Amino acid sequence: MSLLSTPTVPTEEFNKKKLVKETEKMAAQIGDWQHKLYAEGKKSLLVILQGVDASGKDGTVKNVFKSCNPTGIDVYGFKKPTEEEFAHDFLWRVHKVAPQKGNIMIFNRSHYEDILIQRVHNWITEERVHYRMKAINAFEQLLEFDNNTKVLKFYLHISKEEQETRLQERIDDPEKRWKHNEGDWEERKHWDAYMKCYEYVFTESEIPWHIIPADKGSYRNYLIAKKVLQTLTEMNPVLQS
Amino acid sequence: MSLLSTPTVPTEEFNKKKLVKETEKMAAQIGDWQHKLYAEGKKSLLVILQGVDASGKDGTVKNVFKSCNPTGIDVYGFKKPTEEEFAHDFLWRVHKVAPQKGNIMIFNRSHYEDILIQRVHNWITEERVHYRMKAINAFEQLLEFDNNTKVLKFYLHISKEEQETRLQERIDDPEKRWKHNEGDWEERKHWDAYMKCYEYVFTESEIPWHIIPADKGSYRNYLIAKKVLQTLTEMNPVLQS
Repeated sequence: MSLLSTPTVPTEEFNKKKLVKETEKMAAQIGDWQHKLYAEGKKSLLVILQGVDASGKDGTVKNVFKSCNPTGIDVYGFKKPTEEEFAHDFLWRVHKVAPQKGNIMIFNRSHYEDILIQRVHNWITEERVHYRMKAINAFEQLLEFDNNTKVLKFYLHISKEEQETRLQERIDDPEKRWKHNEGDWEERKHWDAYMKCYEYVFTESEIPWHIIPADKGSYRNYLIAKKVLQTLTEMNPVLQS
Repeated sequence: MSLLSTPTVPTEEFNKKKLVKETEKMAAQIGDWQHKLYAEGKKSLLVILQGVDASGKDGTVKNVFKSCNPTGIDVYGFKKPTEEEFAHDFLWRVHKVAPQKGNIMIFNRSHYEDILIQRVHNWITEERVHYRMKAINAFEQLLEFDNNTKVLKFYLHISKEEQETRLQERIDDPEKRWKHNEGDWEERKHWDAYMKCYEYVFTESEIPWHIIPADKGSYRNYLIAKKVLQTLTEMNPVLQS
């Protein structure tokens, strides 16, 4: 697969106002399903969000899951590992925060960083990359098989130009300045390497990825909400009476 | 493999006094190695002890690891899962207590109970047993590969008669009465089923098991100390100067 030839913009007709309204409606339905999921307490949902800096991970969480009851949903942002985390295998800190039955867990970045950023910067050997990919497949299957956890993975696909615009806005717009981080511009220099590593991940993952054209936030939210809603509908949690 | 035809008593000449002395000596050496392992902080050791009730798991810990510094060694006894643990996959609570670099962790019982006791009592399907066995292999390899954790597994093999003697002692001897548990006599009724499940585990495990003839405690301690010492020697942790 090639990310370069995968569109970052909508390929269908695009009516922003209509999409925003649709997404609002779906977010409310997602909230209803989450209530049932929690009340039933038998299955769980893990949503993994990956994408380069400024690809819209935070915006997705805010828009798609805003009608959920915070009691049954959590967002975990993976930062640089702590000393204790570094003293364990790479999945140790991830497994600890896997969702319990009844809950939705959203990973803002994830265990995939351990074969993305680490590979791009040559912090790990190729042998370890391949080994970790195998371990990730086994881990995700363990969650699905042994804990009724549905694993839903999204890659927020933006163009290099769109990223530049957004990173620049974080400098120019006082409202967005808290998100500005000089390091993001540094990572951007490795764009092509990141794309290659992502392509590897998409090819080798046993549980498939959803590549979301994400240059337009409203379209991105719409597509992700649609997939989440469809998944919850299929999981079909029921309220005991 | 057949456990029934595997001896539970020493097959070589047996001098108790000499073995106890040898074991003492090895325990001291194990303590020295543990200090180096901790100081180096690059590798870890996971010792898994399995066996029926009264097979000598506690006695093994006490005799083989008594010269270790408690700072760098831990023993985790797996009991009936809590409500929170039940709300996750079976390896969730196990992964949390995997040893960090520099440490020795001893599992008194382990994740293998999830395909032993659960299978004997038909609490899980055969499909799930096979799946879990696969997940265990992947998990142990993750520890070995991604965290330099050496996984050392011992089955403490006693005869059905020896177990009866020991369980009866727990009733008769006031010093041992705190260990008496009516439930152990109940589990004993499933002896043959347990042996069959253990045989399955030994055959399907990718990291091999060490079957220890354990009717004689001194011989059991001697064999296990020897294997632990050999393993630490091979791991060869070094003090930085």
